[in-house]
This record gives sequence, C-alpha cells and structure tokens, in this order.
Amino acid sequence: MSLTTAFTRALALRHPIALAPMGGSAGGALAAAVSNSGGLGLVGGGRGEREWLERELAWVSERAEGSWGVGFLTWAVDTETVARALEYEPDALMFSFGDPTPFAGQVRGADVALIVQVTDLEEARRARDAGADVIVAQGGEAGGHGGTRATLPFVPAVADLVSPTPVLAAGGISDGRGVAAALALGAAGALVGTRFQASLEALVPAHVAKALVDGRGGDTERSRVLDIARGAPWPRRYTARTLPNAFLDRWRGREDELSNDTAAQQTYRDAAARGDLDAVPVWAGEGLDLITSVESAGDIVAALAAGAERALAAAGNS
Amino acid sequence: MSLTTAFTRALALRHPIALAPMGGSAGGALAAAVSNSGGLGLVGGGRGEREWLERELAWVSERAEGSWGVGFLTWAVDTETVARALEYEPDALMFSFGDPTPFAGQVRGADVALIVQVTDLEEARRARDAGADVIVAQGGEAGGHGGTRATLPFVPAVADLVSPTPVLAAGGISDGRGVAAALALGAAGALVGTRFQASLEALVPAHVAKALVDGRGGDTERSRVLDIARGAPWPRRYTARTLPNAFLDRWRGREDELSNDTAAQQTYRDAAARGDLDAVPVWAGEGLDLITSVESAGDIVAALAAGAERALAAAGNS
Repeated sequence: MSLTTAFTRALALRHPIALAPMGGSAGGALAAAVSNSGGLGLVGGGRGEREWLERELAWVSERAEGSWGVGFLTWAVDTETVARALEYEPDALMFSFGDPTPFAGQVRGADVALIVQVTDLEEARRARDAGADVIVAQGGEAGGHGGTRATLPFVPAVADLVSPTPVLAAGGISDGRGVAAALALGAAGALVGTRFQASLEALVPAHVAKALVDGRGGDTERSRVLDIARGAPWPRRYTARTLPNAFLDRWRGREDELSNDTAAQQTYRDAAARGDLDAVPVWAGEGLDLITSVESAGDIVAALAAGAERALAAAGNS
Repeated sequence: MSLTTAFTRALALRHPIALAPMGGSAGGALAAAVSNSGGLGLVGGGRGEREWLERELAWVSERAEGSWGVGFLTWAVDTETVARALEYEPDALMFSFGDPTPFAGQVRGADVALIVQVTDLEEARRARDAGADVIVAQGGEAGGHGGTRATLPFVPAVADLVSPTPVLAAGGISDGRGVAAALALGAAGALVGTRFQASLEALVPAHVAKALVDGRGGDTERSRVLDIARGAPWPRRYTARTLPNAFLDRWRGREDELSNDTAAQQTYRDAAARGDLDAVPVWAGEGLDLITSVESAGDIVAALAAGAERALAAAGNS
C-alpha cells in the first residue's frame, strides 16, 4: 500500500508530505533531502533575503531529484523576489501570511504550482479565489507564526470551502499518526515543520535542536513578544509559537511597553548575538511531545509515511 | 466494515462514539438516544444537583438498551453523589476537571468503567495512576470548559503516555472525518459534545440550537468572563469556550474588575433570567463550522459512524 492523493499526483510525490518552508532553517540541504525521500521539499525563503535565497536555491535545484519549491512570507516579498526564485525552476511556490493575489498570475503563468497557506476561513476563500493549486490549512498548534484555529476542526472546514482544491493539513503533525489524521480529515497531505526542525539537515544550531528534543508541547506558547524584541514587522494577527524563555517570561502581557523600551530591545539584541536561548525564539509546535531525537530528514519522511500507513490500517480495526 | 476498538469492546458498543456529558443539556433522553444508536450515552451530571440527576438517571436507566453512564465535574462532587449515581447501575462513570483519585475505588469496586477526562499530560498521568479504564484526551477546541492543548497533537501524546489504556479524543470533533482522525491518531474512539448540543434530544432552547447552527468555529473563544458573571466557582485553569456575546465583549480582559463589580453581576443575572443570548453562555466548540442543522441524536450517531468509515476508506486512497 502507498498513500496516493490529489497532492501526490499533482506534484509527482511518493508520499503526501511537505516540508514547511521554515524561514532560515529550511535551506537547500533540508529541502533536497525531503525531495529525494519522496516528499515535497520547500526552502524557507522568508522575506526573500537575496544572498541566502540564491545560495540555497542553487543548492536544492542542483541536488533535488524529486519535486521541490520555495516558500515566502507574503507580506514581505515583491514580484521581483518571486521572479528571482522562478529562475531556479521550482515545481511549487508557497505563500504564507498575507494576500497571495498579486503573485498568483506570475506563479501560475510560469507553470509552477501555487501553494497558499491560510489560518482562517476568510484567508481560505481568498486563496481559492486567487486560484491556488494547493491550500495549506494551518492550525495554531504549528510552531512559528500562525493563527488561532486548531488543526483538527479547521482542516475539514477548509476542505469543504475550497473543494475540489487539494488541502494540506499543518500544525501539530510530528509523526505518522498526525499524517494519517490529516488524510482522515479529508486533506490530501500534511505539511510538517517542527519535526524537520529537529533534523540533521536543518540550519539549526545543535543547542536549539536539543531544546526541541527536550521540550514539551504543553510548554510552547503563542506570543508577539519576541517579534517585538527582534524588531520583526509581522502583522499583529500572526503570533509565533515558541518554547518559553526568560525574555518572554519577563515581557508576556506587556507588549506595548516593550515596543517603547529601546533599552530592553538592546538587551534582546545583545543576547541574540550570543545565540542565547534565554532570549532568542526557539520556534516549536505542539507536536513536540512526539519528537524524541534528531534524525536525518530522509529517515523522518520514511517514518512519517510508514507510520501513517500503519495508523490508517489500525484505525477502527484493533 | 465496522469500527472496532478496545473502547467498543470494553463497553459493548456498536460505534466508537461517546456523548460528552454536557452539564444540564445531556439529559436522560439524549443519553438514551445515543445509547440506543450504538454509542455510549453519558448524562451530564455536572455538580450532581440531586433532583435533576435523579430524574434524568431514572429516565435513561429505564430506556437505554445499550451502555450508558453519567459524567461529573470532579471538583464539584462528593462520594455521596457518586454513590447515588451508582444506584442506577450505569455502565460507566466519567470524571472531568480535577483529581479522580478519591472516586476511583468506589467506581471500580462497583464494577463500573471509570472514564477520566484530561486536559494536559500531568492530568493524564494522574488518571492512569488512579486506574482509569478509559482516558479522554480533550483538546481546547472543545465547547464548554477545558484547557489549552490542541486535540491533534495532544491525543497521540496521551496515548503514548497511558498505553495500553484506551484513549478517546475530544475537542473539535463534529463529523465523521473528525471521528476518523481520532482513530488515526491512535484513539479508541471520539467523545463528541457540540454536535449533540444541536440535536433534537438535547435540553437546549431552540434559540440556542439555532445560534449553534448559525455560528462559526472561528467566532468561538475561551474565557473566564461568563463563569465569573455566573458566580460559577470553576478552578481558574479551566476556561470555557462559547460563542461571543455582548456581555463577554464588554468584560473581556477585565476579569478581576468583573469579580468585584456586583452591579455588573446583577445585570448578568437579570439577563440570564430572561435567557438572553447577549449574556448567557452558548457553549460551543470549534467544530461548529461542520454543524449545519439540528438532527436527532440517532441520525447524528449514524452519520458520525458512516462518515468515519468513509473517511478512513478514502484516506490516502483517492
């Protein structure tokens, strides 16, 4: 048995699994490893920082044997950045957090799959109307930035709204059971972030990977505090789920005060320059309880796919 | 095909579906209807109000042809209330929100299944150690009272922790796809609340049922405001998910102030006496998007079970 969906068919994948394009940490090596394992590898293009993007896209475009793509923060990029990415001939471009409409024609015109991530039903409707080929319904369990809907009830609501566009489930999916649940909910696949953050290929320092393995889902929280401290101009509606740390503890609930406290922001920057986990965000989703070791991305993809098949075979049949 | 699990075997059920024991609205008629449709009907015993409890338990114990039980708020009941419920010879007693240890021997000594609902991993460990026969892992998507974990990542984490005790998934499950996802996550069944709140048998006024059908999952929110207004002495950690209303809008974020404002509390009580939906809580979970009509409980059970079978058959096979 192998898991076949509209998503695996559209992108010629062996497994209905996509790497979340985690800004900065999902580089070319991680995307290529996922692609070569039969999933969709997506480079985390973030705001489209040119030097980083060109280096990582050069890497993945040379080494990926399967489908791959790149994801951007919709609110932070322009058509010039998108055009640059298209030069590397990706199979898919993904847009998260913002209105994808200005980029839809450009991407589809290049015969590249347009993937749009959404965090509520209004965004889902907009993505559908923009002509998205795949829509990612992201629950607030996800690590890093996102909204407030929960994956389990949100995914079928999006699937109903945008049918027949294939939907991927994202948020809280860290093992094969989560992938199986995504498919059971009517999704055509799962987009997985935190599990790959704790992989050998992620551009993540070893002490961050260890923090992920040691951390617990119930400890993670959504907040704007660390974005304010970093001076990251995220739209207010998108908070970030991270592990807690001392800086976050100190400023939780005092976001407006922090915005105006330049000394505190300097303290943050000094700590961040040292990579101090008492300050810098460790992006982490609620699926952390299921992550107990750092593995290669290829092993992770294989375990997610095999685990999903096992979970579906056992469901209601034990 | 029919869905068989450790839960259906333990309680002799046709379907891996339990009615959430929603205080006051899951009365004997609703519990009996679920029981007679092959699920586990659980009366919402709440704090154990004697007259209500005896009337509803008399009803269900006379009419249920399958397994049934009753659920209590653990923090609000005593062994005397539990003993009174046991006189009606239920098949299961369920305890939610608090330490079940003081009741475990009493319930299991009566040869009645002990079901314990948990909202985090510490509660799951305590339920396991108390000897629970079934553990309900409830995500914060759930309508009414609960915690902050999300169902999709929480259920497998609980299943791993308490194995081999069967786990039910709760929170955000309103259709067959949600039941299928619960099973895919490794749960032995699903506990469903809001979907049954919008049933013909629920003890819910018609205008509340209409509000549920009209409401959207993304509109619901967790808050302590309405508990404070009602003077309901809930432990602080358990907030309630409801539809928003004018009273909640007015006091959101000012919980401490409301606690001390007796005039505002009187305003609430006056509105509540009129059943005014601008004040009284309409308990509702995030699965609301999937609820589009008021149905009989029997039809709901049948649709949940058939939908789950369809969803599992289609998962990864389309």
